[in-house]
Amino acid sequence: MLEELKKEVYKANIMLTEYGLAPFTWGNASGVDRERGIVVIKPSGVPYPELTWEMMVTVDFDGNAVDSEYNPSSDTLSHIEFYKAFPDIGGAVHTHSKNATAFAQAGRPIPALGTTHADFAYGEIPCTRSLTEDEINGGYEKNTGVVIVNHFKDNSIDPNAVPGVLVHSHGVFAWGKNPVKAAENAAVLETVADMALKTIMLNPSVNSIDKFLLDKHYNRKHGKNAYYGQGK
Amino acid sequence: MLEELKKEVYKANIMLTEYGLAPFTWGNASGVDRERGIVVIKPSGVPYPELTWEMMVTVDFDGNAVDSEYNPSSDTLSHIEFYKAFPDIGGAVHTHSKNATAFAQAGRPIPALGTTHADFAYGEIPCTRSLTEDEINGGYEKNTGVVIVNHFKDNSIDPNAVPGVLVHSHGVFAWGKNPVKAAENAAVLETVADMALKTIMLNPSVNSIDKFLLDKHYNRKHGKNAYYGQGK
Amino acid sequence: MLEELKKEVYKANIMLTEYGLAPFTWGNASGVDRERGIVVIKPSGVPYPELTWEMMVTVDFDGNAVDSEYNPSSDTLSHIEFYKAFPDIGGAVHTHSKNATAFAQAGRPIPALGTTHADFAYGEIPCTRSLTEDEINGGYEKNTGVVIVNHFKDNSIDPNAVPGVLVHSHGVFAWGKNPVKAAENAAVLETVADMALKTIMLNPSVNSIDKFLLDKHYNRKHGKNAYYGQGK
Amino acid sequence: MLEELKKEVYKANIMLTEYGLAPFTWGNASGVDRERGIVVIKPSGVPYPELTWEMMVTVDFDGNAVDSEYNPSSDTLSHIEFYKAFPDIGGAVHTHSKNATAFAQAGRPIPALGTTHADFAYGEIPCTRSLTEDEINGGYEKNTGVVIVNHFKDNSIDPNAVPGVLVHSHGVFAWGKNPVKAAENAAVLETVADMALKTIMLNPSVNSIDKFLLDKHYNRKHGKNAYYGQGK
Repeated sequence: MLEELKKEVYKANIMLTEYGLAPFTWGNASGVDRERGIVVIKPSGVPYPELTWEMMVTVDFDGNAVDSEYNPSSDTLSHIEFYKAFPDIGGAVHTHSKNATAFAQAGRPIPALGTTHADFAYGEIPCTRSLTEDEINGGYEKNTGVVIVNHFKDNSIDPNAVPGVLVHSHGVFAWGKNPVKAAENAAVLETVADMALKTIMLNPSVNSIDKFLLDKHYNRKHGKNAYYGQGK
Repeated sequence: MLEELKKEVYKANIMLTEYGLAPFTWGNASGVDRERGIVVIKPSGVPYPELTWEMMVTVDFDGNAVDSEYNPSSDTLSHIEFYKAFPDIGGAVHTHSKNATAFAQAGRPIPALGTTHADFAYGEIPCTRSLTEDEINGGYEKNTGVVIVNHFKDNSIDPNAVPGVLVHSHGVFAWGKNPVKAAENAAVLETVADMALKTIMLNPSVNSIDKFLLDKHYNRKHGKNAYYGQGK
Repeated sequence: MLEELKKEVYKANIMLTEYGLAPFTWGNASGVDRERGIVVIKPSGVPYPELTWEMMVTVDFDGNAVDSEYNPSSDTLSHIEFYKAFPDIGGAVHTHSKNATAFAQAGRPIPALGTTHADFAYGEIPCTRSLTEDEINGGYEKNTGVVIVNHFKDNSIDPNAVPGVLVHSHGVFAWGKNPVKAAENAAVLETVADMALKTIMLNPSVNSIDKFLLDKHYNRKHGKNAYYGQGK
Repeated sequence: MLEELKKEVYKANIMLTEYGLAPFTWGNASGVDRERGIVVIKPSGVPYPELTWEMMVTVDFDGNAVDSEYNPSSDTLSHIEFYKAFPDIGGAVHTHSKNATAFAQAGRPIPALGTTHADFAYGEIPCTRSLTEDEINGGYEKNTGVVIVNHFKDNSIDPNAVPGVLVHSHGVFAWGKNPVKAAENAAVLETVADMALKTIMLNPSVNSIDKFLLDKHYNRKHGKNAYYGQGK
């Protein structure tokens, strides 16, 4: 079981680099085993070509290493906050993908500007507030996760319907029902960001799409009566 | 005959992904057999690497499946409107290619800014109006096709001379004498959009090219006395 | 001799597509044999993957085919004007490369904004005036060449020092001492255009570099006392 | 030992082209052997595909060739200034990578707009002043190095903490503890420039990140108590 999870987390990490979302070592993917109370995540700072599935690091929900000689990703405590707050997710990823990170650096959410976005997320991809000096100097990585989780709670955003976020001045976190789906969501988020950047250049005062168009596209793919694809 | 059409539709679908026009499952190609009254189209939501020509779905002109266990593309009813209204076309495609979709999301047509465009289309690539809430909630995909067809009729645009369109807040539909030509037209449309975006950034008040330059280039390639290429 | 020239013209045509300058069939390369008074050029509208060196078309200086069953490129008469007016060049190419074409469509020259440009061309890459209706309707391709040549003459631009040009609303022509060098110049011109577009976005009022910096870089690579490279 | 250094310099040169930082021959990497007082650098104007490690040129600290039949890179005297002024570096590279060069051409530093930047450099990537006519006409390449070194001295910038620079109207120099690290720093600098360009387009008045966020990210990776990666 743990071997299976490590292999899936490994696969999700490789997807990040294959999609071009994580140049150098700038990204990580994790998965959770809720019954055993453990999280499996990429070791910190290891270049993707050197990774093997056996190197994936297992930690408990406090971030303490369980079975590995490697240090876990420095972002581990951010991931754990998601697993604690978002009960339906099974995987999470962090990237510095270029277009989405540009939005994060600009401090702007990615508005829902078209049906590509609506097929993926129910509303804008939010951008968190900046962390305070205290939040950064004491427990930075955990606080990054807390700020994200609170943004979703305070604004009543459903993390199942909006499977990613921009951290102000930083980059992207995305999640999904499993690690591979989380990596795919990060890839779609980057594509949506690319289109949004170009759209804003063509029409700086563009607005989000109509609520009924958002509803239609999101629900035909993800709703109760979804009719996209080959059935569940 | 049906096998041949399925293979050609399959090929056009693969072209969409090879040209980079349809990341993930975001695109579909179809072809028509007007004598038999059938349309062949990609199955819904199947990733391109898993596609085979045998999986292509056959539907009648009402969109009902004729011979397949797979669901047809959710955009099937849009395609059928083209086949009903545009008598000379044999294939159609739908994409979310990035630059053209940025124009669609910005609600802007792609003006004819140079001879690259004029070699491809006789005038701007139009952008439809937004669909109304009623059009979206009842028969969305069919209405998408209807809005496109009506845009061409109401503005007296010849679909043979302008082989593609932007759907407001959505993406691209393109068509041609056969499925492969439709896919190629979608690829050219994306290239033209890329150049147009950059042109507008360099010259925000740029105008369409002179009518006589448009005439010259379109006609030397597509007119009665065309002299581009190796003859008909 | 003719076989050798055909092979070199073929190679230059292939370079256009390998450099990504000529998507689909949008580009052509030629070479001249001044002693025999002939020009060798790509056949019109043949996709690059189907080209062989034997398909290259030989024409005289009036553009009449000498030895081929294929139609020469529709741009042949433009090329011939260069060979007649610019005595030192041995090859010429035409492309619709994206960034340079954006400048042409915007009707803007590419200013010399840095040493990358100065290493390549001694001053801005000019953009011609638009052709008139009469020039387009009678002898369009020849007139395209004439307008370019006159632009260089009227503005006292040395075609050996500025080995390319933008045709207003159209695209790029470039040349060099032989066909391969012409193709390489078109590739450098596109790279310089890419950088210039980004520079203008970062600094819309940017000026050309200082004359003495232009002199230094151009001359250390191309001047009498050049010291770049491994000697002549 | 010299063979080893030549192989490492060769590897760094190849990395420049593999990262897409040095199209054509526009880039060079060097390494230093401080004990022997020599610098090894790419030969001038040799296309990357033709390079072998044996072709690397050895010069002394005055730039005189020690053992080679090839001319050293025309930028050799710039590199030497770095080795003389920055005692901790072991390698240096020069590139014309597109996004960073756009900043150089625009005369703008790359501000620290996010944690991607802070993980790499402690503060903005500076852009030097333009060289004067005298500096260009007498000892241009050496003066390029001098202007860079003086910029770091005059502004009290630590070259170990800011491992690269933009030369006004020119391009990029980067350095590191060895040639391979210098090449990697040039690649990261280009990625950071790409993100910064997009960020500025989305938010033209964007400011540098908070000092405490810069401190946090730079120090968790490069500081005394760094906890990123697998330990020293």
